[in-house]
Parts: sequence; structure tokens; C-alpha cells
Amino acid sequence: MFRWNEENQQAQQAVLTRPAVTASKEVEAICIDILNAVKTQGDAALLKMAKEFDKRETPRLLVPVEEINQAEQLLSNELKAAIETAYANVKRFHQAQLPKDIKLTTQPGVLCELKYQAIEAVGIYVPGGSAPLPSSVIMQGVLAQLSGAQTVVLTTPVKADETINPAILYAAKLCGIKTIVESGGAGAIAAMAYGTESVPKVNKIFGPGNSFVTMAKQLVAQTIPGMAIDMPAGPSEVLVIADERANPEFIAADLLSQAEHGADSQVILLCNSERIIEKTQQALTEQLAKLSRKDTAEQALANSSLILVDSVEQAFAVSAQYGPEHLILQLADAQPYLNLVKNAGSVFVGDYTPESAGDYASGTNHVLPTYGYSATYSSLNLLDFFRTYTVQTISKNGLRELSKAILPLAAAEGLDAHANAVSIRLEAMNNER
Amino acid sequence: MFRWNEENQQAQQAVLTRPAVTASKEVEAICIDILNAVKTQGDAALLKMAKEFDKRETPRLLVPVEEINQAEQLLSNELKAAIETAYANVKRFHQAQLPKDIKLTTQPGVLCELKYQAIEAVGIYVPGGSAPLPSSVIMQGVLAQLSGAQTVVLTTPVKADETINPAILYAAKLCGIKTIVESGGAGAIAAMAYGTESVPKVNKIFGPGNSFVTMAKQLVAQTIPGMAIDMPAGPSEVLVIADERANPEFIAADLLSQAEHGADSQVILLCNSERIIEKTQQALTEQLAKLSRKDTAEQALANSSLILVDSVEQAFAVSAQYGPEHLILQLADAQPYLNLVKNAGSVFVGDYTPESAGDYASGTNHVLPTYGYSATYSSLNLLDFFRTYTVQTISKNGLRELSKAILPLAAAEGLDAHANAVSIRLEAMNNER
Repeated sequence: MFRWNEENQQAQQAVLTRPAVTASKEVEAICIDILNAVKTQGDAALLKMAKEFDKRETPRLLVPVEEINQAEQLLSNELKAAIETAYANVKRFHQAQLPKDIKLTTQPGVLCELKYQAIEAVGIYVPGGSAPLPSSVIMQGVLAQLSGAQTVVLTTPVKADETINPAILYAAKLCGIKTIVESGGAGAIAAMAYGTESVPKVNKIFGPGNSFVTMAKQLVAQTIPGMAIDMPAGPSEVLVIADERANPEFIAADLLSQAEHGADSQVILLCNSERIIEKTQQALTEQLAKLSRKDTAEQALANSSLILVDSVEQAFAVSAQYGPEHLILQLADAQPYLNLVKNAGSVFVGDYTPESAGDYASGTNHVLPTYGYSATYSSLNLLDFFRTYTVQTISKNGLRELSKAILPLAAAEGLDAHANAVSIRLEAMNNER
Repeated sequence: MFRWNEENQQAQQAVLTRPAVTASKEVEAICIDILNAVKTQGDAALLKMAKEFDKRETPRLLVPVEEINQAEQLLSNELKAAIETAYANVKRFHQAQLPKDIKLTTQPGVLCELKYQAIEAVGIYVPGGSAPLPSSVIMQGVLAQLSGAQTVVLTTPVKADETINPAILYAAKLCGIKTIVESGGAGAIAAMAYGTESVPKVNKIFGPGNSFVTMAKQLVAQTIPGMAIDMPAGPSEVLVIADERANPEFIAADLLSQAEHGADSQVILLCNSERIIEKTQQALTEQLAKLSRKDTAEQALANSSLILVDSVEQAFAVSAQYGPEHLILQLADAQPYLNLVKNAGSVFVGDYTPESAGDYASGTNHVLPTYGYSATYSSLNLLDFFRTYTVQTISKNGLRELSKAILPLAAAEGLDAHANAVSIRLEAMNNER
């Protein structure tokens, strides 16, 4: 237990410091090679990697549409219904985010518009690795579908048996995704960034992944003009604020549900009761023993802290300083405190709102800024699949009046040609009379 | 004149290719040194640079509030009124962009919210260089003001006489900016990114600048967790689409108003009339001769192209391929074509809507994605000063029902602890009965 008020500022900062995440030069060099190979050789490079890395004898790149359509037959009724509920809730919440154009006359004869345009082609990466992640498809695919993007590409590595999990395929089907590429890692990112014979080139790439995926996304965003990625990536993290009446079993379960994500996950408890912290510590030990991902969770707990604070208000101040990806509030009545929330990605209010609700099915997005980026970055939302541009339409009289603002400013900035573009039009108007 | 339909695809691509912009390793090395100096020595490093680079004997860092307040006395009535009109129009258009929170019950007992929070501390860089840019203050300062950001820092280099142009100070005053730092280049970016004794640390840095400013912004965004910047920078550009009845004088004036920005600016005309292109060429020569920034504009014109297309529709297709920062439509009736606009930053409709209207005073923002980034990036808008986060509040019954979606998905993804965080709560509910 870390007693916040008994420590100096340096120790306080240290307990909130995240483990350093630095990509190795080796990962960077490998990614650059892969990007170049896919850029120059296209499909051939992807197929070669499928043979080498995935040990596929006769690899293929695209999942046939019939396979996507038939995947649901391989799912249990429970899982199928679960995917459908998650899809429906996420769709409902994000549909409410559909943007509206703005049209406004700023002064007579000067019409200004703000317009939203779906990003034309988007790519979604879904990690394979230790577990299939249908939730990751939903959290990104629903948004692409709602935006009306013309091209949606999903890339994901195959399992050892060379198939893609049917839960992923069914989630993709619900999201209307028809282009599913059997490719993972930096190669998949390269394929979407440059385009190949089989894989359409996209403008923006979404999705989490391992260090190769993260590095490849950074590299394409830095080197290809017009290419964008969703947000900076970092290890997952949760911060729980609990009061003296909170349930230590619930707290421990929430901390562990984050800790099992990865050994680099960080979990923090801020609590104003020494007794609850001690009981949480016990519950952690008991619950940990039963987990299949015990080792991972145990390593993550080693980076983590149970912190005693003086008050709930202080807990919110410490949380704002940390800026957690997930913020869970196990408080008797959280409402009065909600205006103290700062720099959090997603907030879970009350004893019966565990993080896993938002991870899967409440409707909010589980793609969230982490590693302190919640000070400036948004949780993934529908606008990430749109761009805005402006339009102005000015009448002759509108320009005549507006010239009184344009001409002195152009003169002050020493930009003759800017002034001339207006005065040449004013002259033309005067000549018309 | 480039005849689009008489050239092959390679030549077509070449004519739309932007001049390469690569930051030198030298610029990067200098910026890294400056960032480190400011990070470790704070104000002392800024003062040292003011002596060395700006040749100031007794440099100061902050502009006293009285100087900001009194600056308007140094302005002509015309310029003062111009700044006020620009401020009012930009404010009106961006005020209409103020976001509204969303609150939605996705299924009974499951309340989801999307909330907007102003980014707490923002920094605005305003270049000094060859001309003062009060418009640059307005285009960023108004948005910071409307967002309600707690901290707004403006940095700008002093002129040779060691003062800041009063037009900049007055624009800042209208925007409610009280912290104005006399510092330019990479040092100014470092000061805002790390904070110094005099300069508050910010979370997001906005504003254009020279290659040192651009590099410093990139470096702090890449290395400081949580730090964000506005958008990738690139040379300014305009594309004009004109029909057979367009006024060649107006076209030439618009092309030149872009060309005078910098030698690396790019200007493109797409027109379906050979006669209009020829007349525009003549008008360019005549108007160019009279400009004070003739040399700059002339160099920019060397990168630029007048392109003959078959039809207005084809012009829009070529424009979408290029993705211009500014798109000017000198068409008899542009309305039927507006749905063909793609990948443009800001659009100027009709013969009497020159780019300089948007650069200064129409109300739209003049900070726009360039260099092909308009395929994915938005023109600067009020939401760039906000971040979103989500909140969910689930009742006991809500969780009981939602568990039917969460538990199968957690099982499918092999995440026990995610499931446990729900089942432990269901058990507690059952025990209550």
C-alpha cells in the first residue's frame, strides 16, 4: 500500500510513472524491410511472408465471401446472440454521433459551411495472437459502416489451422465488411497503406497490435502523404477510485480484468480506506490463483499500485494527474464527483459497471487513448471516420463589404496579391455600373 | 499548358506531384539540441537564444499585460476595424461548432454518454518572419477562447526592433490571450511543450512555422506522452477550376495570391477552355510584374501547372486525385458540382469568392490540411480544441441482461478475468435475494 500523503512529490510521481515503452531499432529495421517488400512486390511479398512466418504451404490472401457469410453456422447460439447484442449497442451509441453539416451566414452575402465527408477508404487491423478478438471488429467495423466509407478492408492473421475464427468473420459480416485479408503484422499494415493487387489501398488505418504493427503504423503515417492512423498506441491500463463502502471483491475483479491483458498492463487503485485496500489485496491473491492467464496478470500487478488517499476528491486529483485509459468509480454516489473527471478515456460509474461491460457490449467504444494520451486524444468515435472541410460562397455585395476587412489585413501582412485578388474584383464590379 | 487527355497516366501523375519536402538531418539535430536545452535549463535557455539568434541585449520573455491592452492605440482605425470584423466572423462560424454531449440508453439499465472536454492547456505559435500575421492569431485564438481552455499560451518572435507587431497583440487581446511569449522557432515550441519558469506547459501545440518549428513540433509529439499537435505541415497550395466563361484576370489573381506565400507554394488551374488558359497566362505575366513579392511568386509558378481538361466533371476528378488545400470554383453555376468535391480543405464558390476572403475574414478557418493530407485530415475546427470521453452507468438489472453478451464474448476471447468481473457481481446480486 502506497500512502499518498506520507510520500514526497518525487515518490508520488514515481508511483504514477508508466513502464517505459520504447520500440527497438531492431523492430524498426524489420518493419522498414517489410514495408519496402510489400510496396515493391505487392501480393507476392504477402504470400512469401505467409509461408515463412505463418508456415502456410498454399497461403491465400482474401477470404471468399461465402466463407464470411457461412461463418455464423459455426457459432454457438449464445455467442451469436452476444455478438449481435454487442453490435446493436455499439451501433446505437455511435449512430447518435452522426455529424450534421453547419451552414451559416456570417455577415450579409457571406455564406460559410462546415461539411463532413466520410474518409473514403479505411483499414482495420484485428490482432490474432493468443485469442480471437471479435469485439475488436465490432468496435471499429460498426463505425466504418455508419460512416459510409466506400472501401473497408479488414486484415487479421490466421490461426495455426490456417483459418480465421468464425466469430471474427461473423462480426465482420454484421459490419458489412466484404474485404477480409488473411495477413497479420507489419505486412498487413503495409498492404493497406500501399495497396497490392488484392488489397485496396486505404487512407486511414485503425486497430491495435503488437510492436511490429504499432511501428509499421507509425512508419506509414510518417512517410506516406495523406496517410493517417487512429491514435498513438500504448499498454492498457485501469484506475479504480473506491470509497470505504466499496466491495473489495469487485475491485479486485476489475483490477485483474485489466491485468490479464498483458504483462505491461498497469492497474491502480485509489481508495480512502486502509481496510478496503487490505481486503482488496487479499481478494487479488484469491482471484488470481483461479485465472487461466494468471502469469500475465501477476506480472502486470507487479507494475501496479494500491494507493491510500485522504478523500475521494484527492483521488480524482491524482487520477487527473495520471490520466487513465479506463476509470472505474466504485462510489456510493458518483454523480457529484463526475465534474472532477479529467483526462480519462472511458468512465465506469457505480458498483455494477465493470470495465468488461464497456470492453464488449455497453455501446461505448473500447478503443481508447492510453499512456497519458487521454489528456489530448479522444476515445475512438464516429468522427474519426470523417473529415471536415469548409465551403464559402460570397455575393458581389458580400465581397464589397468584406473587402473592408480583407484589404487592411492583407496590407498589414504585406501580401499584395491577396489584396489584388479582391481589388481586381471590386474594379470589375465598378466597371459594370 | 498541359493537355490532360493527350498525356499518359505517368505524365498526369507527374504534373500533380508535389515538390518533395524533406527535413534535413541538420535541422533535426539543431532542434534536438534546442529541445534539450529548454527542457533542462528553462527560461535561461530561452534568454540565451534571444541574445544569440535575435541579437537582443536585454531580452524579456513575457509581454506585460498593459502592452497587450494598449496595442490597439498603435493601429489605424481601418486595421483595427478589419481585425474586429475578422474576429467576429471567425467567432460566429466556430461558435456554431460548439459540441453537445450525447446521452443514450442503449438497452434498459445501460446508460452511455459521450462527453466533450476542452483540452486544458493549448499553445499557439505565430510566425514572425517576413510579415506579422494577425490573421494567424485570430484563426487559432478564437477557437481556444471558445473552447474555454484554462491555459492559452501564444509564442511569437519579436521584430528587428525587439517588439511584437501591435496587430498581433490586439488580435490576441480580442481572443482573451494573456500569456504572450517573445520567443520564436524551435525554442518557443520547446518552451510550450516542457514548460519553463515563465511559460506554462501545454498539452497541444497549434500553428504554422518554418522548418525548425515544424520539426520541433514533430519531435515533441513523438517523444512526450500525451502531447499532441494540430496537423502535419506542408507548403500551401491552391487549385482553381474554371469554365469557359470565367474571368482570366480573377483566375490569375487567385493563383498569384497563393504563389506569393512561398517559393514552394503550388498553384494549379484546371479549365475546359484553351482560350481562357491562354488569357490567364497573359494575365499572370501582367499581374506578376506589379507584385512586391514578385520573386517568390515567380518561383512558385515554376512548380505550377495550367491544365486543359475536357469537362468540368473531369476537372473535379483530377482535383480529387490531387487533394488541394484550397479549391476555387469559378463556374457559372457551381451548385450542381458541389457533391463532386473530394479531398479539399476549403472551397471557394463562384467568381466573387477569392481565397483571400477565407484567409482573412469570411469566418472559415485558414488552417487547412495540405500536401495531400486533405484525404484524411480536417480543416482546423473547434473540435480540435476538445477531446471526447465516454461514461457508462449500468444498473443491477442492466448488468444482468448485458451479461448475456459480455460472458460469451469474454469466453470466446479467452479472457477469464473479464468474465469474472461480471459473474462475481451476478453472484452478489443473487446472494442479496
